[in-house]
Formats: sequence, C-alpha cells, structure tokens
Amino acid sequence: MADKLKGNLVVAQSGGPTAVINASVAGVAEEAFKHADVITGVYGSLHGIEGIFYEELIDLGQEDRATIHRLVETPSAALGSCRHKLTEADYERILEVFRAHNIRYFFYIGGNDSMDTANRVWRLGAETGYEVRAIGIPKTIDNDLAYTDHCPGYGSVARWVASSVRDAGLDTEAIGVVDRVKIVEIMGRNAGWITAATALARDHENAAPHLIYVPEKPLNIDRFLGDVQNVVDRLGYCLITVCEGVRGEDGKPLMASTSAVDVDSFGHAQMGGVADYLCKVIASRLKLKARFDKPGTIQRVSALLASPVDRQEAYGVGVEAVRQAIAGVSGKMVTIERVSDEPYESRFGLVDLELVANAERLMPADYLNEAGNDVTEAFLRYARPLIGGPLPQYAYLRKVLVPKKATQPA
Amino acid sequence: MADKLKGNLVVAQSGGPTAVINASVAGVAEEAFKHADVITGVYGSLHGIEGIFYEELIDLGQEDRATIHRLVETPSAALGSCRHKLTEADYERILEVFRAHNIRYFFYIGGNDSMDTANRVWRLGAETGYEVRAIGIPKTIDNDLAYTDHCPGYGSVARWVASSVRDAGLDTEAIGVVDRVKIVEIMGRNAGWITAATALARDHENAAPHLIYVPEKPLNIDRFLGDVQNVVDRLGYCLITVCEGVRGEDGKPLMASTSAVDVDSFGHAQMGGVADYLCKVIASRLKLKARFDKPGTIQRVSALLASPVDRQEAYGVGVEAVRQAIAGVSGKMVTIERVSDEPYESRFGLVDLELVANAERLMPADYLNEAGNDVTEAFLRYARPLIGGPLPQYAYLRKVLVPKKATQPA
Repeated sequence: MADKLKGNLVVAQSGGPTAVINASVAGVAEEAFKHADVITGVYGSLHGIEGIFYEELIDLGQEDRATIHRLVETPSAALGSCRHKLTEADYERILEVFRAHNIRYFFYIGGNDSMDTANRVWRLGAETGYEVRAIGIPKTIDNDLAYTDHCPGYGSVARWVASSVRDAGLDTEAIGVVDRVKIVEIMGRNAGWITAATALARDHENAAPHLIYVPEKPLNIDRFLGDVQNVVDRLGYCLITVCEGVRGEDGKPLMASTSAVDVDSFGHAQMGGVADYLCKVIASRLKLKARFDKPGTIQRVSALLASPVDRQEAYGVGVEAVRQAIAGVSGKMVTIERVSDEPYESRFGLVDLELVANAERLMPADYLNEAGNDVTEAFLRYARPLIGGPLPQYAYLRKVLVPKKATQPA
Repeated sequence: MADKLKGNLVVAQSGGPTAVINASVAGVAEEAFKHADVITGVYGSLHGIEGIFYEELIDLGQEDRATIHRLVETPSAALGSCRHKLTEADYERILEVFRAHNIRYFFYIGGNDSMDTANRVWRLGAETGYEVRAIGIPKTIDNDLAYTDHCPGYGSVARWVASSVRDAGLDTEAIGVVDRVKIVEIMGRNAGWITAATALARDHENAAPHLIYVPEKPLNIDRFLGDVQNVVDRLGYCLITVCEGVRGEDGKPLMASTSAVDVDSFGHAQMGGVADYLCKVIASRLKLKARFDKPGTIQRVSALLASPVDRQEAYGVGVEAVRQAIAGVSGKMVTIERVSDEPYESRFGLVDLELVANAERLMPADYLNEAGNDVTEAFLRYARPLIGGPLPQYAYLRKVLVPKKATQPA
C-alpha cells in the first residue's frame, strides 16, 4: 500500500460524447466521495483539459447526490468535451493549476489522445517533483483502444446501430418495391467496429444488413456493385451498412467530394458523405433507386437504447480508477478483460498509458470475411455480449398464401 | 343495424412504414377473429394493393396467435407496402379478385392516396352490384391527414425525434467548442409536423433545438444565417432542426442539388439534402464548422422508442374499423378525436373517405412563430400528449465554479 496522498481530485472528459461517458464521471465521483479522508475535494474540469488550462473547475461536491447518480443515465459529456492538442507550455500551465489547487488525482476519460495527455501530465509532475496520480479511463465508441477487450461507449453504440439497422432493414423489406437499396452510414474513422456491430441486427433469414463494409478492407466499386446486384436479384431489395471511413483500393477515403472532408486539430480527417456517394453510383451504374440514412451523432449519444452492460462497465472503470489511484497507481489506464463470453463476465485490469497512447486497434483479420463484405462468427461472439442482451423479439409472419382463384392476367 | 354481410376480409398496408402500422393489422385481425360468424377468413394482402392485384393474399388465420399479437411491437409493414397509383382497369381487376375470394371487407391502412384507393374500390363495387365494405385506417408519420386530430405513426416518430434531438443537442453542447453547429434533417415533404415535434426535446434552459424550420414558412437564407449567428453568439453552439421539404422564398425546395430530387409514382418529390446544403452555406458564409445528422428512415420505424399512446391508438383504429364495418359502415376512414389534452383522452370517429382522400393538412399558422424559426406553445400543447409521457429525466449539473487560484495567463 502506497502512502496516503491527500489532496483534491479532478476528472475530465474528452473527445466525442457517448451514451455512457457520464456514467464514468458518476463512478469516479461516487467512489471519491467515499474516501474523503484522502480526497479532499472532487472537481470536474469543464471541456476536458481546457477547463484545467483556464481554471474552469466545478465542485462536484456542491451537486445534489441524486443528480450525480442520475449522470449514469444521462448521455453526452456533462462536463463538456474538447479536442485540444497541447503544447509543452500547456503542460506546464496544467501543473501550475494543479499545484494552485493541490490537485493530486487526475482522471481523464477519453480515447488514445487523452491517454497521451494524462501520461504527460503525470510524467511532468514526477520530473518537477509534484506528485499527481493520473489514471486514464477508457471511452470511445470507436472501440479502437489497444490493450483492453473493448471500450466503454462501444456496447451502447453497437446496440443502437443493431436495433436501428434491424428496423431500417424491415423498412426496406416492406417498401423495397419502391426503394430497392438503402445504405446506412455508420461512424468510424479507421476502424470498422461500430459498422461491424450492425450484423447483430440479424434475427431472421435474409435479415439486414446484407452487406457490411469497413475501412479495414478496401472497397472496390465494381465488386461492390456486383455484391449489391446479387442481393437485389435474390431478395428484391438490399440494405448495406458502410463505415464513413471506408477506403478505396488506393487507400484513400471514398468520399463524395472533398468538401465533406475536414480535419480537426489532431489532424484527424472528419468523415462523411460516403453513403451519398455510393447511392449515386448505384443509381447511375445499376439503375436502382437508392437512399441513405446517416444517423450521425445521434447513434453515439442515444441514452434510451444504451447497453446495460456498457453502462455498468462505464461506471465500473470510473470506480476502479479511483480505487487504484488511492492505492498508489499512476500512469495507467483501466482496462476491461473478458473472463467469459457466455455467460458474459469481465474484470478490470491496468495498462501503461504510454502503451495505449497513440496506439490504434483495428479489427483483426479473422473478424472479417474474405470477400470484404461481412463479418465472421468470431466477431459476433465477441460483440454479442457487449450490447447487453438480445434485442426484443419481433413478429415474423409465416405468410401462408391463399390459393389463387381469379382469372390470371395475361 | 345493417344486414349481416358474410364473407372474407382483407387488410393491406401502404406508403411509408411506421413504428406502429403493424399494430393496426393486429387490431384488425384480433377483432376479426372474434367475429367468425360473419368474417369467414382474415387475409393480408402482400405489398398493399398490389397483393390484391396479383392475388398474393396470405391467410392470417394460419398464423400463430402470439405472432399476430407480437405485431403490436414489431415495426415496419409486416405485410409489405407499396406506392402504386391505380388505373381504372386496375380497379376492375381488384373487384374481380374480391369476387373470386368473396372478399366483403377491405381495410386499407395508409395515407390519403390509400383513402382514395379504398374509396374507389368501394364505389366501383356499389356501381357493379358487389357489396364490399371498405374502411380506411389512418397511418402516416407525416400527420398530414385532414379530419383527424392526428395520425397513428406520428406520436412515435415525434417521440423518436424529440429523444434523439435532445441527445444530439447535449452532444453539440459538450463538443460545441469544436463543432459549433449541428443540423438534424427531419422527414416531411410539405408538412412540418415531425420537425416541429423536435421542440419536445427541450427540458432545460437553452436546450436544443434552438431553431426549427418547416416547409410551411419559407426559409430566407440571410435571415437563417442571422438566426444561427445569434444563437452561436449567445451559447457558443447551435442545434437546428430542419424539415427535408423546407422551401425557399420562391416556394421551391431548398435542395443541395437536383440529383437529390427524385419523384415517386404519385408525382411526389423525394426529399433530401437540405441539411448538407445548409451546412455548406454556414461554413462558407459564417465560417463556422457545421455538421448534419440525417436519421432518415430510422426515425419512422424505431420500435424501441415508440410512443405507448400511439401504439395503443394504432391498435384501436384497427379494432374500430372492423367493428364499424360489421355494423354496416363503408366508405369511411376512422378518425381520432381528442377529448382532452391533460389528462389526454381520445375517442374514435368517422369521416367520408372522399373528403380525406387527396386532402393534406399542413401546420396551422398559430402553431408556428412569427419569425418562422420555432413552434408556439399551442403546438406543444397539441403534440405533448401524443409522445406518450415525458422523456426520462436527465441530470443537469449546477456547475458551481471553484474560485481561481493560479496565476492568470496574460
């Protein structure tokens, strides 16, 4: 057991909001409140690391405890988020603010950029003789952090896309005589984890999605059109899910136009437009009416369809981070380790922030089929427990035809 | 009491699928099964009127009763839908099929085009000495049928957009430092009912949506940009909901490009692209980063967020249609009449199919504000009960700032 390090705590949120990132804040705060002997104040930083920089800290101890607990079911990032790349001088400023407020515990909830930030803050503290225990709390719908089985936020977006694609597929099945092809554009820059999860929509024969395209496998337009035509020939309609970051064979994003591409301050390209583009290609080359749904940010923050497993784990990583920090751990990110698939069981672990920072975990080859248009059973086994139980059962009619009796039209 | 008309029943679904259109099929079937003395067979027509035309009728009596009941919670159109404009010869063919199968009861679930079809089938029967009782069952997310307080399907899409825009608004509030403006594009050709319902997302001060644009009020681009800038100046970010059918001051749809416009077999323009267009205008004229979410068909068929009131009424109009037809009524559509707002209470009524066919109910002037960028309290009073209870409560932090202590940056 490490020495008791007495001081204040600050928790911050970074990157894209999710359905359950606030559950991690609740986990941190509620656990911290239990350790008032070491954690003298529980602060939240507004808009990620920027709130520390500008000293916009809020006192979570001043909030109603019921409000803190209701954060578990409140989507988006209640403390505000940011995408802020720090300079060396910025890190010094952060330490200055930490010193001024006796902040000894720093919890950064985010993706790999945030893990990098937490790591640097901790190291600079150590180098300059100011002890701060920094723990990373994983959060990303993209599910692309290495060294953890999966990331809080992913299970909920996976449940949302599975449920919505199931519904959208039934919609296209019903109206496919008019709109033959529907493309649902799913979030994801380099990794297809979310798009892959749309396969969990399938609950009956010929169920949507019929084709799935992710950035890990290059999309060849001719093969793609052949795939679509095959499904339409077989079923009369086709539902496709495509990751917004999907790439052509030249490795470049398959965008509708360069106007859809934007770059954030980390140099990440902002994706969008691929479904629109593919609809136009289908209309012109296959002469089939195609439309697209692009749920955008709605998919990542939908609280009412959040995965209960995801919510529970998001809360749990927050609690675990505080426990580990009090026990003396620093410079680590809390991970989720899978114990078993069915019944699903997981436990928490730790990994060096340094390792996870700036690493990116793409989908492994055995989760994607050879043709590059679907996932494998291995992926389904991986993803199924994360959405927190099966989707509610729908009715599918047997459709016993009444024998024909009228004169048949010529 | 009319003479007992003994024979078979056929129910069909038409137009865009919804979250609750199958509940109406369940209502028809379950009520019809109770009247086996007059209704000898309960058939479903596959893909709307086309199933009658091609004699693709299924025997709902052959389905498991539990499956029929589970239709209440199954979205989309289980019998399949269509958008098929009939010729005079087509109506004669329909009567031929009706005669061949002794179909005496015809229930068409759909919008105004379907009411027109049901009306013509009934009249042609009467003219040619074949009695068929045809009843229209209202269904449209667009809520644009006249002579009914509202349409089954609307309450559920309203609940979906309110919930999703609330979440998307919190997302933009959290990350607004990066993506200042978000536009959510909502379905609707000429009527802004669904887009207007996004106002039900508001549950705290400054809550989204901040601006709402519907087709009933022309959108002037300069005024629009001024509105957006005002919100961004005040809050730092802005969430806008815009109906895909929104028009410019020339009365023409405000489309990104003509390629987004398509026309279905009824001559209705297929909408889409306005949010993309407005994002580009905002980026170029206001120099603000703007993104859009276009949930598309997902909004209309999301079963898991359906309104309980809507589901119950969708079932109810099916039951009522059968009861009225058995009692001798024909050539009518079942309507919903509002008895009181709070507590919400409704009852069923009837209107001539002729009146409702081809009529379209746009939003009345007193439901929209003068500036053309929001709804009024009168609209909220109208729409609130239809979503079936308030959205679950979220946590909003008080955000008590910790006094600044560090040296302030110059």
